[in-house]
Amino acid sequence: MPDKPIQPEGWSCPLPLKDYPNIVMGHGTGAKLSSDLIEHLFIPAFRNPALDAMADSAVLEFPAGRLAFTTDSHVVRPLFFPGGSIGELAVHGTVNDLAMAGARPLYLSAAFILEEGFPIEQLSRIVYLMAESARRAGVKIVTGDTKVVERGHGDGCYITTAGVGVVPAGRTVGSDRARPGDAIIISGSMGDHGMAIMSVREGLEFETQLTSDTAPLNELVETLFQTAPKIRALRDPTRGGVAATLTEFATRSNVGILIEETALPIRAEVKAACELLGLDPLMVANEGKLIAVVPAEDTEVVLASLRKHELGRSAARIGTVVSEHPGMVAARTAIGGKRVVTLPYSEQLPRIC
Amino acid sequence: MPDKPIQPEGWSCPLPLKDYPNIVMGHGTGAKLSSDLIEHLFIPAFRNPALDAMADSAVLEFPAGRLAFTTDSHVVRPLFFPGGSIGELAVHGTVNDLAMAGARPLYLSAAFILEEGFPIEQLSRIVYLMAESARRAGVKIVTGDTKVVERGHGDGCYITTAGVGVVPAGRTVGSDRARPGDAIIISGSMGDHGMAIMSVREGLEFETQLTSDTAPLNELVETLFQTAPKIRALRDPTRGGVAATLTEFATRSNVGILIEETALPIRAEVKAACELLGLDPLMVANEGKLIAVVPAEDTEVVLASLRKHELGRSAARIGTVVSEHPGMVAARTAIGGKRVVTLPYSEQLPRIC
Repeated sequence: MPDKPIQPEGWSCPLPLKDYPNIVMGHGTGAKLSSDLIEHLFIPAFRNPALDAMADSAVLEFPAGRLAFTTDSHVVRPLFFPGGSIGELAVHGTVNDLAMAGARPLYLSAAFILEEGFPIEQLSRIVYLMAESARRAGVKIVTGDTKVVERGHGDGCYITTAGVGVVPAGRTVGSDRARPGDAIIISGSMGDHGMAIMSVREGLEFETQLTSDTAPLNELVETLFQTAPKIRALRDPTRGGVAATLTEFATRSNVGILIEETALPIRAEVKAACELLGLDPLMVANEGKLIAVVPAEDTEVVLASLRKHELGRSAARIGTVVSEHPGMVAARTAIGGKRVVTLPYSEQLPRIC
Repeated sequence: MPDKPIQPEGWSCPLPLKDYPNIVMGHGTGAKLSSDLIEHLFIPAFRNPALDAMADSAVLEFPAGRLAFTTDSHVVRPLFFPGGSIGELAVHGTVNDLAMAGARPLYLSAAFILEEGFPIEQLSRIVYLMAESARRAGVKIVTGDTKVVERGHGDGCYITTAGVGVVPAGRTVGSDRARPGDAIIISGSMGDHGMAIMSVREGLEFETQLTSDTAPLNELVETLFQTAPKIRALRDPTRGGVAATLTEFATRSNVGILIEETALPIRAEVKAACELLGLDPLMVANEGKLIAVVPAEDTEVVLASLRKHELGRSAARIGTVVSEHPGMVAARTAIGGKRVVTLPYSEQLPRIC
């Protein structure tokens, strides 16, 4: 059934919330102020029958198939950055985790931990962006929660989303299924999200602005399964970047992975920013890219189908699964040498999502 | 399939976590330190096949029926209190929200927002208590996430759980289904959780310690549906207490509710603490109680079945749904007068769960 269109001007600072321009402790306590926030801010934005019932649980139809279930907390700093906000990340992160299991995302929950004093106008913008992202991804936000913590015990707004989806029969992907000879494909350029965040934090300026790639990947995954049902593994290389994803594939499949540095799609401004800050683009987070491991014979058909989609235009084969050096990722450099891609013990980019 | 028993001594401060007695930023970044936390702390505690796959989503069998889906963030302060901790609350809160929809809880997610410097030993205790609570409630924690925020941007540990369950055919409950003549039943004493938290915060001492009632209610709900399948509404009176729950029933069902103050089960020490602090026990949070609205003719059978269960021994009928004063809750006082039960605009007890 069709949702009413969101009219941000109508609820961006709706009465009676206008009396409280900033979050106060009472907004998180189950009393009148909490209800105001739910009725005048969350419900109008996310409107759907399950949420409108305002029960502690949403009760929903679930199609035949296995259930995929995932969660992510979002603590990104700053809350708004070039190309997105914590709102888009909170929706796309969970949608993408479901899609990477081969699932069709259906329903999301959203739990907010707000800091006393957080402007309701900013919360409205975030909620509006979440609603728009959910609509774009074809999922419904059906249940939620709000807690408020005292000033100095939060950072404005933390959002935890969980999601459920259905895995259609016949789809089995897993990080333990890569086989020697398989091709490693990425759906587009690397490191855009991480470097967009860094550019804001470090005050870097380039001729072209660095922009986050945050996007919902579920449609792209549907396309993939239509053209290459024998996909072995799928993963969105978020925290830890492409290096972390490939290391996990190598470890769990007990295979080696060899990537070609010259084949890695990296935008010039991202490369420049990485060099400036001494970061390896292989380890920088993405929020709208996927890595697929597919049988070698499917390489061309997969690339062609990815490139037809707006979010896969720069798709590239970046490497191969090998039987040598099991558990290890190696990169062939531009001058023909090989280097081992090691994961950092800690990380250079905290609070990236 | 049977889980291996949890052996807290084996992982309470396991190597290589011993090298880091406190949480550092790297524990939340997807690099080596994150993996250590997952492999050596979360997986051993929550062990089950879905979680062991360590994918971004758990993929699970889902039985025939409607899906119930819910989420709650937990920011209780202090983290440990008489009768429980944030760990039990995080599991029971979500299990109970599912049960109140008539659902059988199946799977939980757990997302942690940890503050830099938080002792890993405390995290271990919390995770152990979550695992024990999940086992007791018969649910599995199948997916999760960990983020770390800088010192001064959190409060040790926030936990957001989401849960899914299945609603068997024929079960329909809703806060809009109360009808004049229905009986209002509570499964036990009121205000225990809220006053336990307050007693710690305010340093109150009584002869008997005030103890939280945190408990999983799903078994009790199963019992209820077996004896009285025509239950109209179920709700656990957490934030805002019994008053908030009854006000919601009255509003959404467009009926009045009349409660008998002399029938309210309140432990003497809770009553004393409420008087001392000037709180109305009707508005104090519970974490292991349910309120059921049932047809009047089912009253005795429901009370009898509740009282047979450990968690329902003090069950009592506390009031009646009436056609007068729709949307309003009234209480008949000990001396025969009537007072209107109004919800506070804000709340006296922040961060209670």
